[in-house]
Amino acid sequence: MNVAILAHEKFPDGAKTATGILRYGDQDVRAVLDHANAGERVSDLRSGLGDAPVVEGIDDVPGIDAGGIDALIIGIAPVGGGFDESWRSDVRGALERGCDVVSGLHYFLAEDEGFAALATENDCELIDVRRPHDDLTVSGGTASEVDSHVVLTVGTDCSVGKLTVSYELVGAAREAGIDAAVIPTGQTGIMIEGWGNPIDRVVSDFTAGAVEEMIAEKGNEYDLLVVEGQGSITHPAYSAVTCGILHGAMADSLVLCHAAGRERIHGYEDWEVAPIPTYVSLYEELAAPVHESEVVAGALNTSHLPESEAETAVETYGEALGVPASDPVRFGAEAILEEIV
Amino acid sequence: MNVAILAHEKFPDGAKTATGILRYGDQDVRAVLDHANAGERVSDLRSGLGDAPVVEGIDDVPGIDAGGIDALIIGIAPVGGGFDESWRSDVRGALERGCDVVSGLHYFLAEDEGFAALATENDCELIDVRRPHDDLTVSGGTASEVDSHVVLTVGTDCSVGKLTVSYELVGAAREAGIDAAVIPTGQTGIMIEGWGNPIDRVVSDFTAGAVEEMIAEKGNEYDLLVVEGQGSITHPAYSAVTCGILHGAMADSLVLCHAAGRERIHGYEDWEVAPIPTYVSLYEELAAPVHESEVVAGALNTSHLPESEAETAVETYGEALGVPASDPVRFGAEAILEEIV
Repeated sequence: MNVAILAHEKFPDGAKTATGILRYGDQDVRAVLDHANAGERVSDLRSGLGDAPVVEGIDDVPGIDAGGIDALIIGIAPVGGGFDESWRSDVRGALERGCDVVSGLHYFLAEDEGFAALATENDCELIDVRRPHDDLTVSGGTASEVDSHVVLTVGTDCSVGKLTVSYELVGAAREAGIDAAVIPTGQTGIMIEGWGNPIDRVVSDFTAGAVEEMIAEKGNEYDLLVVEGQGSITHPAYSAVTCGILHGAMADSLVLCHAAGRERIHGYEDWEVAPIPTYVSLYEELAAPVHESEVVAGALNTSHLPESEAETAVETYGEALGVPASDPVRFGAEAILEEIV
Repeated sequence: MNVAILAHEKFPDGAKTATGILRYGDQDVRAVLDHANAGERVSDLRSGLGDAPVVEGIDDVPGIDAGGIDALIIGIAPVGGGFDESWRSDVRGALERGCDVVSGLHYFLAEDEGFAALATENDCELIDVRRPHDDLTVSGGTASEVDSHVVLTVGTDCSVGKLTVSYELVGAAREAGIDAAVIPTGQTGIMIEGWGNPIDRVVSDFTAGAVEEMIAEKGNEYDLLVVEGQGSITHPAYSAVTCGILHGAMADSLVLCHAAGRERIHGYEDWEVAPIPTYVSLYEELAAPVHESEVVAGALNTSHLPESEAETAVETYGEALGVPASDPVRFGAEAILEEIV
């Protein structure tokens, strides 16, 4: 599938859906829409994401008028999940050319009358991946009954790399001959996998149940499931999602993800990131009454550090955790995998 | 408002919405529908709830055919919030006589085509109080900015008395001349107050935000707000709701509620209720990174114990907590209130 990804003013650092798809998706990304970086190339802005031109808007996507693009993906996720009206012309431009538009916003594009009419007119689809399916229910506490080993990536904050760590870990497991899969719990993972449940959009009573349902569905097909965690247990707004995933997943092992140098909660700068050992004990003590689980390894995102500082940062992080750590993008996920299998 | 309350096979012990309304609501309850106890009276089955006849079904409610009933309230909340088809004739019977039907089920009666048609035909309403309003959003972490002192009732399990403790505490505060109110977070509280938000039905990302919004709305009108807690932080299915309320409320004080003798999680008997000190440390440690909060008192539901054992049970509970405790229904809420003001 050929796609363009909208990431205005946020690419690459604030566009985790865009970078996730570029790195792990099997879509062929023909362009990134970001008027702040128009004229650059993806590979100039960050390595490891492949390459594509960065363009001003939908009209500038190569091949757009020749049917070369199947879908426009909204590749940014603003706090609160709203739709930015400045994107409207790009979405309209895609629909007018018969391209589907895929969105993970809380604002459902299919409920926007203007977009819905355009999609009908041009025989294309508005795909809101953040809309959970209808027949969810409460957890029965059964996730631990599956045959596979279940790992959950937990974090000190949002946007520290939980999705990246999940994919790197599954990649390393496959390299080692282990049949492994990601359980996608957010918009990016769902766009990459083509299935999944947007846990942050689920009715709060069904949060754990929605995770359990996914694990039950895949648990006997794989030897290792890596559940993509969300948010952080100390987040002023999103901790409910994190807690529901923790108890619903009933994970055997936890991997604590952190971004090097992150001292304040992203978007909630009045709150400090707690000391690392606080997260270890909080996640373990909160998990235990439902299902005993241990932080077996750490993953540190050092993408903003020079090579020379990254190794020390990972070492320091591992010491604070009391378990082995790695930056799976920079140094591979093998050290983490070893603690799991 | 004259009402009848449906509580088949669950009254009084498994019907906390029914008993909550009987005890704290200003509705005039003309009958309880419970075919298992038909012929008895409410006052025979439990003291402190006032009195009304217990009847077989809607046709047996005194005055039902003379327009003596304004509404039928669904007074039970089964696990999962489903609608029991055996209740259908009672709901139909109410609607056929022009009575509104008020429900807190996850299953929305207004979306049931048969009920909807009957309600239209008889010019009455289907009121689903578990439907949150539409414009919720994420928490901004602002609940602590209100002038009032905020107390949150937290629990070791579901159905341990958090709503009861909230109302007893507000009652004691008012007696002491303090301007106090309950922040209702569940169906029963919403039915009693006539406003509120069913937090367990809110999108998980907005859980904390929905609590924050209610506190902001009432925070400057009262000196003391008691937020009705939900579920338990160690519950296999509902902990997400509990966690979101904890962080969204940013309470100054926590009151830990427990039911004497409860050893297993209600409806999830494979799970033990953790030792009491575990709850104190879990709630405090989980709250702290967002807003420092302390368990200042305990509330023990001793309704199933004889008078002679209740006092010892409360004492033992207080010792396990390390703070004063009471059974507010049996011994008053003053001892708890003293720890707050």
